[in-house]
Order: sequence, then C-alpha cells, then structure tokens
Amino acid sequence: MSKRLVVAESVPPESQPETRKASAEPRGARRKRETHESLLRAAYKLIAERGADAVAIQEITEAADVGFGSFYNHFESKDAIHAAVLRMVFDGFGSALDRLTQAVDDPAQKVAVAARHTIAMAAKDPLWGQLLLREWSRPQSFSLGLGMRLLRDLSVGVAAKRFNVSDPLMGLIVAGGTIVSAVGLQLGLRGEGSRLIERAGLSAVDFDKRATITLLQALGLPPAEARKIVGRALPPLDWKPTFAAPPPIHPGP
Amino acid sequence: MSKRLVVAESVPPESQPETRKASAEPRGARRKRETHESLLRAAYKLIAERGADAVAIQEITEAADVGFGSFYNHFESKDAIHAAVLRMVFDGFGSALDRLTQAVDDPAQKVAVAARHTIAMAAKDPLWGQLLLREWSRPQSFSLGLGMRLLRDLSVGVAAKRFNVSDPLMGLIVAGGTIVSAVGLQLGLRGEGSRLIERAGLSAVDFDKRATITLLQALGLPPAEARKIVGRALPPLDWKPTFAAPPPIHPGP
Repeated sequence: MSKRLVVAESVPPESQPETRKASAEPRGARRKRETHESLLRAAYKLIAERGADAVAIQEITEAADVGFGSFYNHFESKDAIHAAVLRMVFDGFGSALDRLTQAVDDPAQKVAVAARHTIAMAAKDPLWGQLLLREWSRPQSFSLGLGMRLLRDLSVGVAAKRFNVSDPLMGLIVAGGTIVSAVGLQLGLRGEGSRLIERAGLSAVDFDKRATITLLQALGLPPAEARKIVGRALPPLDWKPTFAAPPPIHPGP
Repeated sequence: MSKRLVVAESVPPESQPETRKASAEPRGARRKRETHESLLRAAYKLIAERGADAVAIQEITEAADVGFGSFYNHFESKDAIHAAVLRMVFDGFGSALDRLTQAVDDPAQKVAVAARHTIAMAAKDPLWGQLLLREWSRPQSFSLGLGMRLLRDLSVGVAAKRFNVSDPLMGLIVAGGTIVSAVGLQLGLRGEGSRLIERAGLSAVDFDKRATITLLQALGLPPAEARKIVGRALPPLDWKPTFAAPPPIHPGP
C-alpha cells in the first residue's frame, strides 16, 4: 500500500485527483473511480471490436456491469467516452514513445522506432491495433494522437532534407499509410490473411522490420541505410493501455 | 424499348437472368429485380456510412422501403448483402480499371492510373471512399477487389525491377497504404481536416497528383520520372456504382 502511495505522489496531483490519497480514499470516491475505469475499459473493447457507431451506451454499461443511469455521472455522451478512450490509448502510447525517443536526434531513427513499436503494439494487443485501423482515417482522431506526432517528426526530417518527399503531408500519407496497412495485414494474418499471403507465395516473417525498412525507403533513404537503421536494437517500450487515471470530465477553458 | 432488348441480349443470359427479356418481363419479376436493386443501394449507403456491424437488416429494408421478410428472398444474411455490395462497387470499379489499362505495359503507369482514379472516385462519390476506408483493413475484403489487383500489378513491376521494393507484399503495404490514406485525408478535407492542414501550413492543391507522385517515389522511381508519369493525361474512366444487375443469389458449384 505504501508503494502505491509513492507512485501516486510521484505524479502531479492535478492529473490523478481521485487516486491521490488511495489509502484514505472514502468508499464512494473509490467506487466512482472504479466505475469510471470499468466504463472506459468496456468502451475500449466494444468500440475497437465494432466501431463507435455500432455500440450503444447501454451495451457499454452492461459490459461494465454498471447501471445505465450512472453512465452520465461520468461522461456526457458516447462521443465523450469515445474521445476519452482515444486519449488514453493513443495519446498515452504517443507520450510513452516521445519519452523513449527524446534523446534521439535523427528523425529517421525516431520514425523507425515509432513504426516498429506501433506494429509491435498492435501484435501484442490486437484490440489496440483494431482501434488504430478504425481511427486512422477519421480526421477527428487525427489531432489527438499518433498522426500529429508523426507529422511533427516528418516535418523535422523534411526540413533537414533527411527525408526525400515533397512535403510533410505527403510524408504522412506514405508513412502513416504504410504503418496502418502493416497493422491491418498483421491482424489479418491471424485468419484469412495468412492463406492469402501463402497462396501469393509471399512471406510474413520479420514483418515489422521489413515494413519499417520499406517505410524508410519510401521516405527516400537508400535501402542499405534503411536496413542499417532497422538493424539497430529497438529500445523496449513498457506501455499498455491503462484506464486507471480518469481524465477530467469537464476540462477547464 | 428495342434498344433495351438489344442491350439485354448482348450479355450472356446466365449473368442477367431477370433483365433478359425486359419488354416481356412479368410484373412480379420486374418487382423482384427492383427490390433487389433497392436493397443493395440502401445497404451500400448504410454500410459505407456506419460500417456493417452498425447496420441491422431492418434498417436496410426500411431505407429500401421493402418489407422486412422480403429481405430473405434476395439475400441469405447481412454478410451476403455486404459481400454483394463489395463485389459490385469494388470488383466493378477494378474491372473497369483493368479494361482502361489493358493496353498499358508499364506497371508504374498502370499503378499510377489506378491510384489517381481511386482517389478521384472517392472525391466524386464520398460514400465509395468511405466504404473503401472501412474495407481496406478487412482481410475478408482483400480477395474481392482492389487489393488483389494492386498486388498483381506490383508483382509484375517487382519482377521486372521497375519497382525497387523488397517484395510485392511490401509494395502493397506502401502503395495501398498511400492510396487509402490519401482517400482518408481527402474525405477529411471536407471538414475538420482542412483546418488541421491549414494550421500545419500545408496545402491540399493537386492532391491526387501529389499523392501519386509520392507513391511512385515510394516504389523506388526517381522523382523526375514519377512526375513525368503523373504529368501524362489521365485516360477518363466512365464508371459509377451500379446495382441494377443482380449477381446470382446461389452461385452454382
């Protein structure tokens, strides 16, 4: 319990208002926090599996084992819980990636690490991969996650002439498209996809590395250099979706 | 009316059993044909807008103004009507593209024409673009449409060393991903997306051409050659989704 307290105190209090004093937390507050977390976890699973349009609030509350009415104590609408899920699973992942690569100067290396970890994350947590595929093409999702971070790294690389694409937007289309298609193909490899690939005489071995080499080549790096970058050890990323720290329901102005 | 008869007789009878003798068609057969078409058209719109998981058969019959029970006279299940829609809108488009480029020998030119028409088609018919985005990452959709055709053209280009990617599968990820991301960004430009792009100081002018140049560069063509290929006049493609010719409900063995 003391360990938990230490962890809670090491983060800024305003980001985790309800977990701050876990040991002294009144039962009502703890229940509220647990309900919030259950709702987010249920929404994550359902939205990833079926898409937000196919999920009713009542299905979320049933999956979370929470009364229908309680939903509105935590979220204003389905859009609100959807946005909260995206923030936690993509902004959370993106922040972890940012911390991992903050000392990396080379934009090509940065993009390579991000691509490999994104493909690996989708392999480790297919729900996460599924949600990424669904959200990639929604412009509403773009600003709050991985797309904007990729655009940022691409802009640096284009300005430094490290990447040979006409502009960052084109870089985003080719690099983001490659990552997302790799994720999609990889998820497909669990079923029908593997037969298709086999029938076409193709191989899925070392898929994440090959996709990342292809991506760097697409951004204009010579094949040998792309292979060299991807040949480097990948720094481990210890991150998984967590729903324990509720974001504020009504963010201030 | 005689013209209609000629058209009907010019196709093999087994492919259009119900439109064959249009002038002599009994009312019941015509109604059945029209109902079939209405169901497909309604399913196309609803599935494109919301995804198949979010659409109930009853919503399709209501949108088509058809009794719920009649649905099963035409399709065995929601999966069956979903598959029929995909066949008509993607296989139909792919076949039209194949006819358009059958005299083109250069795989780079072939892929460029396909990419530009795919992006243009999504701009002309946003529902079509929306459905393409939804289906791209579903392995079930892969075999019946554009993915397999692209893989075919990429395989030819890789074998002929026209494309400099390690193998056709990697070519598919980068080329397919670029096309689909371009379609997604373009759809996004109708709303929120345009503000994001503006804020980032980027431009969406000549989007289809720029995306296709980027795609060809990603496949290893030198920038000048990619620009030259995309600078050629695009042969027009006169195709739009049609639901008039019902595919056989129970294909023979």
